[in-house]
Amino acid sequence: MAYSIPAPINAPQRILLGPGPSDTHPRVLAALAKPTIGHLDPYFLQVMNELQSMLREVFQTTNELTLAVSGTGSSGMEACVVNLIEPGDRMLVCINGVFGGRMSDVATRAGAQVTTLERGFGEIFSPEEIAEALQRVQPKVVGIVHAETSTGAWQPLEEIAKVVHASDALLLVDCVTSLAGAPVEVDRWGLDAVYSGTQKCLSCPPGLAPVTFSPRAVEVIERRQSKIASWYLDMSMVRSYWGDSRAYHHTAPINENYGLHEALRLVLEEGLEHRFARHMHNHRALKAGLQAMGIEYSVAEGQQLPMLNSVWVPEGVDDSGVRSQLLREYGIEIGGGLGPMKGRTWRIGLMGEASTARNVLLFLAALERCLLDQGMSLDSGVGVAAANAVYRNGE
Amino acid sequence: MAYSIPAPINAPQRILLGPGPSDTHPRVLAALAKPTIGHLDPYFLQVMNELQSMLREVFQTTNELTLAVSGTGSSGMEACVVNLIEPGDRMLVCINGVFGGRMSDVATRAGAQVTTLERGFGEIFSPEEIAEALQRVQPKVVGIVHAETSTGAWQPLEEIAKVVHASDALLLVDCVTSLAGAPVEVDRWGLDAVYSGTQKCLSCPPGLAPVTFSPRAVEVIERRQSKIASWYLDMSMVRSYWGDSRAYHHTAPINENYGLHEALRLVLEEGLEHRFARHMHNHRALKAGLQAMGIEYSVAEGQQLPMLNSVWVPEGVDDSGVRSQLLREYGIEIGGGLGPMKGRTWRIGLMGEASTARNVLLFLAALERCLLDQGMSLDSGVGVAAANAVYRNGE
Repeated sequence: MAYSIPAPINAPQRILLGPGPSDTHPRVLAALAKPTIGHLDPYFLQVMNELQSMLREVFQTTNELTLAVSGTGSSGMEACVVNLIEPGDRMLVCINGVFGGRMSDVATRAGAQVTTLERGFGEIFSPEEIAEALQRVQPKVVGIVHAETSTGAWQPLEEIAKVVHASDALLLVDCVTSLAGAPVEVDRWGLDAVYSGTQKCLSCPPGLAPVTFSPRAVEVIERRQSKIASWYLDMSMVRSYWGDSRAYHHTAPINENYGLHEALRLVLEEGLEHRFARHMHNHRALKAGLQAMGIEYSVAEGQQLPMLNSVWVPEGVDDSGVRSQLLREYGIEIGGGLGPMKGRTWRIGLMGEASTARNVLLFLAALERCLLDQGMSLDSGVGVAAANAVYRNGE
Repeated sequence: MAYSIPAPINAPQRILLGPGPSDTHPRVLAALAKPTIGHLDPYFLQVMNELQSMLREVFQTTNELTLAVSGTGSSGMEACVVNLIEPGDRMLVCINGVFGGRMSDVATRAGAQVTTLERGFGEIFSPEEIAEALQRVQPKVVGIVHAETSTGAWQPLEEIAKVVHASDALLLVDCVTSLAGAPVEVDRWGLDAVYSGTQKCLSCPPGLAPVTFSPRAVEVIERRQSKIASWYLDMSMVRSYWGDSRAYHHTAPINENYGLHEALRLVLEEGLEHRFARHMHNHRALKAGLQAMGIEYSVAEGQQLPMLNSVWVPEGVDDSGVRSQLLREYGIEIGGGLGPMKGRTWRIGLMGEASTARNVLLFLAALERCLLDQGMSLDSGVGVAAANAVYRNGE
């Protein structure tokens, strides 16, 4: 029987308000479609230099070893861990959600002696408890998540970096969801190894993982006794390709890097401060709307991420029924809960391009319709009214 | 000082006749630019199913575990190795070029006890010498490269698969450069773990690595005593995302997968047999032209890959001078030699979309100009004439 070739890609126009990917700007989509060229083409080498330069701006760092790993955000996590960890090294991993748990798994596979510090999903860590654990464990590396995509919790890092450095450990940070949506001040805070993904607040399709390593982290890599467990993610080789020697390692994803180049240009055109303020402003409007509709955040006040709003599914409402209806009738994607939050929370992303007043108002109006269909008792219009009040006050 | 944002991507139009990436079809570029959607969107799940189905056609397999790893070809190599190898396992790696050497490095990092079987760059292995090594080493896995991108050598696999299976080992094969340009008959030959890349004969930008695992290989993965060294490449988890449970692992590179979808459609529209014949035909014409110009292949007759022509740089000719001139004056990229072949060979790719009579004739004509500029004594027109003779004879 002859094979029947599938029809061409006919992707629907969604509004991506989930935990990522977020909406991609048309300029980024256009950049993806520029002609593929060689990975050692003089023009592509220029693109790589520009990417490094723009990534340093966005990470707020002068770290030389700043580049885009050729894989998604999780490959960035693995890259940071396997480059810093040698078998038997002690690592302290702070777990308050799925991604801290993942980091612990990655570190264990890399041969680390992992000690975990655990908090409930949605909670954050204090510098004091980390200082206490540092004394107890004496780790080489401390791993923590800045923006827990699974819970919506926002972990302050500045004080923690101080206690980590006081004990001479390295601080490894997951900024997948925060980068370009909230401040990530790598140099000022003193972060040693940081990874992110392209598909959150950078609003670029998934496929690359921006990373940056401090000079202290680079020294640790250079002084390793053992080979890095992953050849593909071996920064001692990858940096030679991104550096002046241009030593061939692997073939960079050319068109993906075009997309990231344009996405970074958009970020820097807007300016980091404006971008962070925009994310915060739309978050406040969304929150006012949701709370007016009786929907509560699953993270404590003051610890809520602006780009990822995790809220409790209201009593008696069908989690996946609402998400399906939003997708089917409005093309709006939001996320369900992960891990122990499965079926209990919704994760509403306002990331990068998707963080707009237009999306906030539409989402609140569409959600109202879905909740009314679910039989929830609700004063019609209160969500939109509360959001508009925030916008009108310019808070 | 204010940061100066780089100009937008302004990629030149190249003709990619190097060792990869190859030229991307406009339909693939257009697919890359379709709207990004969620990685669990019902439409994206359909795309994944279609990708698996088309990849099985191209790999000529019914293997259930057939999918695109979210990284470049080298990540496919690492995925195959780390999933099959547990620390202490014996692996026999056949090295006759850079990529066999890389496989040995990857396997060592994964904890394998590696024994290498080595041949000169450009040579291939006989089933007899592998049978002998199998007896001596008794490995769990044998790794070999089907199409050595660094040398242009074409390794027959069918007989080797038989001797490997006779000793109860698994055969792990690098088909990065061969897939979709020459037969890769996974089931008929009995290959157990095969990886490829998108940027060679599939003519899709780099960024994904098609892989396929036989039921025997899957059994080995399922019976592992230790965790897979790489979380990112752990097929026991990745397969759950591509399988019916759709368990979240990492966020798939959405737009890259769109591109691969269209690239696979193009391959299957043309038909594998026609595509292989086209690659062979253009290879013959190129070879006739090069030989008429006094340029010799660095691989023995009968062992030359159709999609990657490795030839000796003629005596007295400046390797990089010619490559620069080709790029500068004609926008044509060819590759230099790798490893011990650096400065000694050129690697001329005729891969996927780039394998056309148009490219063969233009390249021969442009190369003639460059060689004349280098002061090489050459009867003008002989290359093109010889190639056209092949085309006119329809050989």
